[in-house]
Amino acid sequence: MKIVVDAMGGDYAPDVVVTGAVEAVKEYKAEVILVGDEAKINALLKKNKYSGSEISVVNATEVVEMCDSAATSIRKKRNSSIVVGLNLVKEGKADAFFSAGNTGAAVCGAVLTLGLLPGVERPGIGIVMPTLKGATMIIDVGANITPKPTQLLQYGIMGEVYSRCILNKESPSVGLLNVGEEEAKGTEFVKETHELLSASKVNFIGNVEGKDLFSGKCDVIVCDGFVGNVALKVTESAAEAMQKFLKRHIKSSPVAILGYLLLRRTFKRFKKEIDYSEYGGAPLMGVNGVVIIGHGRSNVKAIKNAIRAAKEEVERNINKKIVEAIGSASAKN
Amino acid sequence: MKIVVDAMGGDYAPDVVVTGAVEAVKEYKAEVILVGDEAKINALLKKNKYSGSEISVVNATEVVEMCDSAATSIRKKRNSSIVVGLNLVKEGKADAFFSAGNTGAAVCGAVLTLGLLPGVERPGIGIVMPTLKGATMIIDVGANITPKPTQLLQYGIMGEVYSRCILNKESPSVGLLNVGEEEAKGTEFVKETHELLSASKVNFIGNVEGKDLFSGKCDVIVCDGFVGNVALKVTESAAEAMQKFLKRHIKSSPVAILGYLLLRRTFKRFKKEIDYSEYGGAPLMGVNGVVIIGHGRSNVKAIKNAIRAAKEEVERNINKKIVEAIGSASAKN
Repeated sequence: MKIVVDAMGGDYAPDVVVTGAVEAVKEYKAEVILVGDEAKINALLKKNKYSGSEISVVNATEVVEMCDSAATSIRKKRNSSIVVGLNLVKEGKADAFFSAGNTGAAVCGAVLTLGLLPGVERPGIGIVMPTLKGATMIIDVGANITPKPTQLLQYGIMGEVYSRCILNKESPSVGLLNVGEEEAKGTEFVKETHELLSASKVNFIGNVEGKDLFSGKCDVIVCDGFVGNVALKVTESAAEAMQKFLKRHIKSSPVAILGYLLLRRTFKRFKKEIDYSEYGGAPLMGVNGVVIIGHGRSNVKAIKNAIRAAKEEVERNINKKIVEAIGSASAKN
Repeated sequence: MKIVVDAMGGDYAPDVVVTGAVEAVKEYKAEVILVGDEAKINALLKKNKYSGSEISVVNATEVVEMCDSAATSIRKKRNSSIVVGLNLVKEGKADAFFSAGNTGAAVCGAVLTLGLLPGVERPGIGIVMPTLKGATMIIDVGANITPKPTQLLQYGIMGEVYSRCILNKESPSVGLLNVGEEEAKGTEFVKETHELLSASKVNFIGNVEGKDLFSGKCDVIVCDGFVGNVALKVTESAAEAMQKFLKRHIKSSPVAILGYLLLRRTFKRFKKEIDYSEYGGAPLMGVNGVVIIGHGRSNVKAIKNAIRAAKEEVERNINKKIVEAIGSASAKN
């Protein structure tokens, strides 16, 4: 099995991407194809003292920048690491693709290059969030900001499959993100989605609220990509803001500084628990191929875990299960 | 000046509401009319050893429960503390209304009883959030889940007035909550709103993202009530979840427990800083009267601060300034 890694994608690329790939190869016995500036990548492999055969390099002369427009860059930068990398998957030379670069371009490129799975209307980005009771997947967090209710139903189905196959949950439950728990709450869009989910085979527990992102009330939370994106960014920054607030207070007192020193290991473990880079990237679900989207700020660990996540998706054949689940859902209607 | 307080509203009503009113009267020299079950309120005033003349009691025989449907309860429960209280404001017997009860019913009741300010299309709930650089108002967080772009422009105008008059900001800046900073990002609704805000007199800084709820990048963030509600609830629960995560880790190590004890005062101060009950309830902006909405879980301090906030709004004549600002915005078009 070979996993294509966009060596040029991410705020700290190509350095941390190459290091992450080297670590993943050692730890998870993955085979990786690094796509990007060949000379730079080879130099970094040397710097990492890597000379094995599990990593190969494919040259790509262009880079999609973070600020590039998604659709335009995919059409115009045919030699970018994203396009070259996705083509390797399309041509059957690799099994999965990972990029921590421009999310819009990766999503757009994946759809244009690989197409969608049979029966899937639109792809969705799923994020696995640590909660007080295990992990919850939130889908979609930005691939599709104006979805139809039928597409949210499909996100529920895909999230359920992911939760079962990758997060090892037995009978994953699905909730619909809304402004209140009562059935009558929300916009027409949300109410229609509620009806569809209720009538489906999905283990639907009804509406959930913003607070349930951390409560672990259900295994999958479906929402439109606009709300999901805002919620995700609020979450990320809440943790950071709280640390900064706390630091400011600690600095003002010697007793607090001593307390902080004693708590340092605890803070570290805590940070690790709420750090979703532990889960390794966000799967782009619904495309005809395994595609993992990384956070722009991905560090070595996040890159390594994303490669592991890609490997797991391929090994557990998640896309075949999604096609079956989507097919059986339509068969019912 | 008299402030009507719904004594029956909130998870810990009437106890904490009455205590909060007693404290507000002492601390802020406010005059309060407590509306609700007269016997219960009088007993609680006695329990609080209050026998002054600043608090009067008006009986209301019904209570809108948290689970009641908003519109129905306002129409049917004519003797509820919410309806009776709002009527006191309408009849000129009081200057402001505060409730920590059923938010939907308070919003609906306020609109039906007091009406809207001239020129205002829809009311919006504004929340003042503590950020790393002072306070930011987010409007709307749930009064209007399917607004029009013109209504979001008005939220920007009202938020600017609030920020200037109550939060004492000189030239408040306004941002539009979106999935990215670039102008071309977002749904059609958001793009139209962007155009309206750009063409207005508002000090518009463009799109902001979920992370900017804590960054203090702008003084006012406008969004539809659905997104705002989800974002608010995510924020509230993020802080709580982090504390729970941390506690779990601390408990597992004696060194960490000692560290925690030394940091306890710091945690307390930190909690106070991020606790928006410090700012005292959320103004319902755009209605023809001063109305403050409290969190269901409001404690004594939150009730006290909400009464202070109501007093400030009346003193600073914020609604007159909103009418002028909305009028001058329309005059321009």
